[in-house]
Order: sequence, then structure tokens, then C-alpha cells
Amino acid sequence: MTISDENVGEGRTSDLATGAAWMRGEIMPIAQASIPVNDWRLIHSDITYDVVPVWEGAFFRLELYLDRFFRSMNSLRLNPGVTESDVRSVLHGLVSATGLRRAYVAMVTSRGVNMVPGSRDPRDCRNHFFAWCVPYIHVIRPDLARSGASVHIARTVTRIPETSVDSRVKNYHWGDFTKGLFEAKEAGAETVILLDSGGNVTEGPGFNVFAVKNNRLITPDASVLEGISRQTVLEIGRDLGLQTKIRPLPLDELLESDEVLITTSGGGVAPITKVDDRVFSNDTPGEVTMSIQKRYFEWAMQPAYRTEIDYVS
Amino acid sequence: MTISDENVGEGRTSDLATGAAWMRGEIMPIAQASIPVNDWRLIHSDITYDVVPVWEGAFFRLELYLDRFFRSMNSLRLNPGVTESDVRSVLHGLVSATGLRRAYVAMVTSRGVNMVPGSRDPRDCRNHFFAWCVPYIHVIRPDLARSGASVHIARTVTRIPETSVDSRVKNYHWGDFTKGLFEAKEAGAETVILLDSGGNVTEGPGFNVFAVKNNRLITPDASVLEGISRQTVLEIGRDLGLQTKIRPLPLDELLESDEVLITTSGGGVAPITKVDDRVFSNDTPGEVTMSIQKRYFEWAMQPAYRTEIDYVS
Repeated sequence: MTISDENVGEGRTSDLATGAAWMRGEIMPIAQASIPVNDWRLIHSDITYDVVPVWEGAFFRLELYLDRFFRSMNSLRLNPGVTESDVRSVLHGLVSATGLRRAYVAMVTSRGVNMVPGSRDPRDCRNHFFAWCVPYIHVIRPDLARSGASVHIARTVTRIPETSVDSRVKNYHWGDFTKGLFEAKEAGAETVILLDSGGNVTEGPGFNVFAVKNNRLITPDASVLEGISRQTVLEIGRDLGLQTKIRPLPLDELLESDEVLITTSGGGVAPITKVDDRVFSNDTPGEVTMSIQKRYFEWAMQPAYRTEIDYVS
Repeated sequence: MTISDENVGEGRTSDLATGAAWMRGEIMPIAQASIPVNDWRLIHSDITYDVVPVWEGAFFRLELYLDRFFRSMNSLRLNPGVTESDVRSVLHGLVSATGLRRAYVAMVTSRGVNMVPGSRDPRDCRNHFFAWCVPYIHVIRPDLARSGASVHIARTVTRIPETSVDSRVKNYHWGDFTKGLFEAKEAGAETVILLDSGGNVTEGPGFNVFAVKNNRLITPDASVLEGISRQTVLEIGRDLGLQTKIRPLPLDELLESDEVLITTSGGGVAPITKVDDRVFSNDTPGEVTMSIQKRYFEWAMQPAYRTEIDYVS
């Protein structure tokens, strides 16, 4: 099916299929959804968000994303006065309006505008929920998700520690990632992994990291987002008879593993065939990784994990 | 003088005096200057800025702010293709158009839009410079800048370390400050100071911290912005015959000092009369602090530090 045939004729599709937003009860082309340059809550990056993928016309594991979004808001003491049911309904209406069958759907709550003149107290702000949706985004290029990507280990920057900004609360504090990305691109690598101050692996810009060694699947326990794709891969790993370990992962252990893979809601599972100068499996995707990747896309089509979108009504 | 009498009749003043922005060569009411909700460079907080105060019709120490802004851009590898002379000219035109005699003037450069479809390489972005201006902002309420403010020492959060995000590059990564502000407000304090992981004083949301002990003026050396107001107060301190020290400042030493003061471009110098339960100078502003504050506003009127704005042309 191409984009939203059923909407053609209403004049909405051409506007919305490249991206749409829901703001204050209205659905609009995404270019019309904007935030003032001097919004105090924006210039303090005082915001949380989550992103649920839509795959072949259905949300994948929607309830897990909604639960995490509400946990994040709670942790930051954001309360925009919406229920999970409200958000679910907004996301359905938004994706339906775009007609997109594969999409990247963001739900966002910002601290919002301060209601008390002169106040710098965040408790005085009216928190603001909105949502937007664009065609599916690939964190790792699709060709590399098949053939294997290279990653660089950042040397000049370490991951923001949990004691400063809670990595479990999805946030826009990406200064460490961006600095690392520059390093990676200069080194000719596709993307970057950051270490913590103790030399343990954390995560990269938009993805979690796994090492495969013998029969074990290992992923870091600290200074990482608890990714939904990470959780899915842990479940798939157990399903495939692997032992799963969530614990500190020193860089040396990553480099000595059999395979490395990354997980992201923007593309699922991608094999890493090169970490700095260390080449894995003769620079081809590992067997365990590719079994997991295959299973991941099978799960994305299983009714138990899907919330179908009604594109007609 | 009231706001920009000379502009009345052109119909610009009422629009612009509450806030204006310069974007892509145009000056507009600030509400019209906005950024799309899904701008990748925005949702990664990939941006630097600086803020120069306008006091009684002149920029105060404009060249120091411009130099720092260009150092920040350089550090983040941002190059929007503007010179210091271009920025100076934009800021003059912007403030002149608003007619504001006391203003808070922001210069901003964001990573901008990626010019290569599908690229996640920050080097492919067209960096974007813009500026905005609003009536003068007080980081500390003016009444408290006279009578003394209370601060809380954050317990549940430490300052983002320099190894993750360079505090010398003015940035919007305020998650640690915001968490600290909630703590402070719950504790009944006006604002918050964050410690580093070693228990040393760093800074607060929008200000630097000084301790006064005997004849010495001490301010932290690490995990802080090198504030222009901080620099001005160090110069004033030497002028007043104080010894100035830029070095680690353990919390215990702050609590045992004679006076505490904070510095900010949004209000200059403010006395702190209470840090947690420790009360300074019987809860009244200290003598040294008030001498420095007086001198600060004298300097703000000295031609050597002022760049007068031409409101007529």
C-alpha cells in the first residue's frame, strides 16, 4: 500500500505525509508546529519525550513506550494533565491523518510557559504535551544494517553520568554524543559509542550496545537509556536460548567479544563489524546478530506486539 | 527616557519593545521567531549562545561577550559564516529597533539543518546564527539583590562534569540545574548551587559563586562558565585591594566564609545571606559584597566599558 490512498481527495495527505504534528488539539503540517526561540523551558532543554515506531501500519509495543514516557514525566515532575489513554488517542489520530504505514512518532512534554510573571520557579510552569510524526527514521543506514557498520570509541568525551542527568529519562542533552560523533566521522566511522569515566561501555546517539560472547548476550546496566528495542532483544535472546546479562561491560571485554550489535527504535537491530581497528567476523555480520535481527522483524509483525492503526475513520 | 519615543509613529515600537528577534536578515516580534519542533539540531540541544546586557542605553563589555561567543562556536565546530563585526552590527540594529534602554540580548548559533538527505553527520549541517532581545532579565529578584537571597546546596544531583559537556561553552544542558531548582524551591530557598562529584562548589542556574574570607575573594576554577560578570568582579576585587583566588572551593570552606555572593549578567552582583541553614552576617548583605555591587553598577556607567547604542538611525 502506498501512502494513505484513502485520504487522497481530501487534500490532507500531501501536506501531512511528509510530517505532521498535534498541538493543542489541532493536527497540522509539521513545519507549522514550532516553539519560540526564547521559550525558557526550551532554552533549558527542560523536556522529555519518547518515540514509538509504526511498522507496516501498526504501533510496535506501544504500551511499553507509553509506560516509559509517563515514568519519564513523573521523574522530571512534569504533569501536562493528559492520561495514557489521551496520548494513545492523539497518536492514533495523528498517524491516521498522515496515512504513513512506517513512521517515527514522537510524544513530547516540555516544562512550558511560566504562569507567574518574573518567576524562575519550575513549579509555576504550565507543562505542555504535544506530538509529531514523520516517515520512519533509520538511526543506522539500512545498507549498513544489512552489511554491518563501523563504530568509533570516543576518546575526548565521556557519557554524562546518571548523577547529573538520568539517562533512563529520555532527554535532549546530546552534547556528549555530538562531540563523539565529530570524532567518529573524522575517524571514518559511521557512529560512536561513549564510555563512562571508569572505562565501561555506555551507549551511542540513539542506540544501546550488546556484546555476544559464546552463549551470552551482555548489555551495560548503567548510564544508558533502558531502550524498548534493548528489552525486545533481551527477550529474543532468551527465546533463542542465550544467557542474558545486564551488567558493567568494560571496553576490553567488548573488543574481545565474538559479535557486537546495537539496538534502536529507529531501525531495530544492526550488526557492528568494526570497533575502532578491531574487525569482527571478517567484517561480515555475525550469525547470532542476524538471527536476532530476523526475529526482531518477525516480532514486529506479530499481533501480540502490534496495535493496528485505523486509517479509515 | 521611556521606551524608544523616537520610534513611535512608525508602528514598530509596540510590537518590538516586548521582545524582538533577528533571523535571516529580518527583524521581527519575538513571537514570530520560532524553531520547528523536530529540528534535529534543536532536539539534540546542539546550540551555543551568549547574552550581553544592555544597561542605560549601552552594551556593557560587549567585546568580551562577542569573544566568548566566538570561542564557544569554535569549540563546538559551529561556523555560521558571520564575523564579529556582523554580529555586532546585528545586535546594534536589533536593540535599536526595540528602543529598549535595559535589555537582555541573546546571540545564538545552532547546528542547523542537515543539507544531505538521510545524513546524521553534524558536518553536513548548515549552521544558523540568529539573535533575540527582551527587556532586562533579573536572575535574582531585585528586592533580594538588595536584601540578600537564600541558596540551597543540591543533594540529589551533581554538576555535569567538564569531561562530558564543556561548561566554558555556554549551553542549554540544564537538566542538572532544573533538578536542583526543584530541590531548592521545596526547601524554601530562592535558588540552588551544585557541587561536583568531589564535593566542591561549582555554579548555579545562570550565575557564578564567590566566597569572601578575610581579605580574599575565592571562586571555583572548574565545571563553571567563565562568566563575564565573574571576570568583572575579579577585576573589581583587585581594584578594592582584595586577593583573588580561582581554585577548588570545597563546600565546607564556602560555609565557613565571611560572605557569599553570586554574579550574573542578569542582575550583576547579588548577596547570599543564607546557604542551607548557615546564616551569614545576621541575614544581612555583607560589607564587601555591597562594595562590589556598588562598584559593579558604577562600572556599568563608565564609558570605557560601554558601547552606546544609536537609537535614532
